[in-house]
Amino acid sequence: MKIAVLPGDGIGTEIVAEAIRVLDALELDFEMETALVGGAAYDAHGHPLPEATLKLAKEADAVLFGAVGDWKYDKLERQFRPEQAILGLRKNLGLFANFRPAICYEQLVGASSLKPELISGLDILIIRELTGDIYFGQPRGRRTAVDGHFPGAEEAFDTMRYSRPEVERIARVAFEAARKRSKRVTSVDKANVLETFQFWKDIVTEVGKEYPDVALDHMYVDNAAMQLVKEPKKFDVVVTGNMFGDILSDEAAMLTGSIGMLPSASLNASSQGLYEPSHGSAPDIAGKGVANPLATILSAAMMLRFSLQQPEAADRIESAVKSVLASGLRTGDIWSEGTKRVGTREMGDAVVAAI
Amino acid sequence: MKIAVLPGDGIGTEIVAEAIRVLDALELDFEMETALVGGAAYDAHGHPLPEATLKLAKEADAVLFGAVGDWKYDKLERQFRPEQAILGLRKNLGLFANFRPAICYEQLVGASSLKPELISGLDILIIRELTGDIYFGQPRGRRTAVDGHFPGAEEAFDTMRYSRPEVERIARVAFEAARKRSKRVTSVDKANVLETFQFWKDIVTEVGKEYPDVALDHMYVDNAAMQLVKEPKKFDVVVTGNMFGDILSDEAAMLTGSIGMLPSASLNASSQGLYEPSHGSAPDIAGKGVANPLATILSAAMMLRFSLQQPEAADRIESAVKSVLASGLRTGDIWSEGTKRVGTREMGDAVVAAI
Ligand SMILES: CC(C)[C@H](C(=O)O)[C@@H](O)C(=O)O
Ligand SMILES: CC(C)[C@H](C(=O)O)[C@@H](O)C(=O)O
Repeated sequence: MKIAVLPGDGIGTEIVAEAIRVLDALELDFEMETALVGGAAYDAHGHPLPEATLKLAKEADAVLFGAVGDWKYDKLERQFRPEQAILGLRKNLGLFANFRPAICYEQLVGASSLKPELISGLDILIIRELTGDIYFGQPRGRRTAVDGHFPGAEEAFDTMRYSRPEVERIARVAFEAARKRSKRVTSVDKANVLETFQFWKDIVTEVGKEYPDVALDHMYVDNAAMQLVKEPKKFDVVVTGNMFGDILSDEAAMLTGSIGMLPSASLNASSQGLYEPSHGSAPDIAGKGVANPLATILSAAMMLRFSLQQPEAADRIESAVKSVLASGLRTGDIWSEGTKRVGTREMGDAVVAAI
Repeated sequence: MKIAVLPGDGIGTEIVAEAIRVLDALELDFEMETALVGGAAYDAHGHPLPEATLKLAKEADAVLFGAVGDWKYDKLERQFRPEQAILGLRKNLGLFANFRPAICYEQLVGASSLKPELISGLDILIIRELTGDIYFGQPRGRRTAVDGHFPGAEEAFDTMRYSRPEVERIARVAFEAARKRSKRVTSVDKANVLETFQFWKDIVTEVGKEYPDVALDHMYVDNAAMQLVKEPKKFDVVVTGNMFGDILSDEAAMLTGSIGMLPSASLNASSQGLYEPSHGSAPDIAGKGVANPLATILSAAMMLRFSLQQPEAADRIESAVKSVLASGLRTGDIWSEGTKRVGTREMGDAVVAAI
């Protein structure tokens, strides 16, 4: 088994280093190889996703990814910007199923913007389709409008699209995941306005018939954005498209108040996966040794479970993280009165010690 | 001056009735004419936006709209569903600028999901473009995919698009609005992924140069969905496209916890406007006399200010609503221990009395 390690930019190197120490502590049998990605790769090789990095990622069983991006690349042409690396990896590896848990750890309830009773015990799994929709749909570009409100004017456009097999496979992923949880799926769409999402809704409904033991309901995306704020615990598994999933998974993550704790997994049809924290590269605190490595460490646990068939090792990491939280250690982002503030390295040490 | 009154479905008739009583109490000089819209119009005339209703709306200076929709129309073909009426009115009247204030009334801070210190004093104005984007973009439909992940498969698609003059005019609306407030605009886009929103961002930046007294910043939509939860008071005027605006304006409204209080205005280039509460038709409580009429009453105030050039009358309504809240009257949706629960009619009576 081989893991491609892509630390990326900003706090990426620091947090991935801790995840690797945790993996090492488990003394499992796999190979790891590191490569540059994002702005770091652009600086060294002139491209955010160099051929060698892509090749390594494709050949590996799993990719452990830190984060990419920094303000200093903002002025580059889009194709050279760090985030193109992540889009390129998703597309080239066919990582269509993105798992974004939004979990509120009991000790961190106070970190949330929400009142404790609304957020305590939250455990949502957002499943976002990740290789289709308006993210990749062609045609797209700029042109002269031939119709619409201002024919003859300059316009820009993108294409939203989903094909039947794309919706079927992500729907199955969601129903299967729900079977292992509380057997409820909410499919989020905008069927009242978009052809694409009427189609989505129809197909999810059809696939749902194969899972009579799972309760399916449908919700418009605007309503979902509201219900997440109003009563987040009403949700269990949420399945949606790439664009809506981008927005709702971040909203849900922020509801917990502890986005520094939330891992993510992006899988393809052969369980090859990319694992990364839900948060970004945080260039403002990069290099200071204060970033929270737990989301990356928990991403490594997801990797062990989903791509490397090592569920016991995954459990060991997750238990270690819980016991470290229970012992009162906190990085700055989740610190509160009465707990002990530690840096990235000390937090990694504590997880290693707990393993 | 003429007002087209379109109560619609569900609680629409009850809440609009109270807004009309409040308007009557002001003893101003304008004509009102009522027509069917939404499911009620479909039942009577076989179409959610009958010709006569559209004609009335077009000829009027302003439309006072209740709400449309009921589960019983869910099975209808899309073109006959109640929400098509609202899309048809926006399109035919050219109502491109949607104003969605998210205000937290001091007495209602407790109704929010958020901790009081995060939400108290909130006053955001979301300006949503309302006649462009993927809502109306052509082509759209179903077809056989010729490329993508599954060539040959059935697919559905929609077109996102914005032309230069469409972005320019909504940007101007936002900068002008910001000048009357705290002189800050946040433009929300997804320029890192979408051609349409890179174009949007470029144009908003250009237009911003005409408003050197207004501070402009840009935020990705996923980040905006997070920051609204984390620190809503950081925002002042937010301007965004139709689709993102649909999601973010509802999220922001729900943050206040009192969506039954929030009005909205949708304006065209000649200040003709449609005014409606931010909430929906709530078929579950329709006809029971318990709905909160205040969002509709406050929509009537916006109508007086924006379309009927009666700013003093608008102020009178808004002051009356504040004094009614201060007196402790509450409909069920905003009721809390220590306040007096009243019905739709009593709430209307109280506002009329305060005027
Ligand atoms: C960086 C960006 C392209 C990306 C996305 O929109 O998918 C990010 O927001 C995410 O959710 O992983
Ligand atoms: C009913 C629906 C078409 C509409 C929209 O999506 O614009 C509604 O959600 C709104 O925001 O007014």
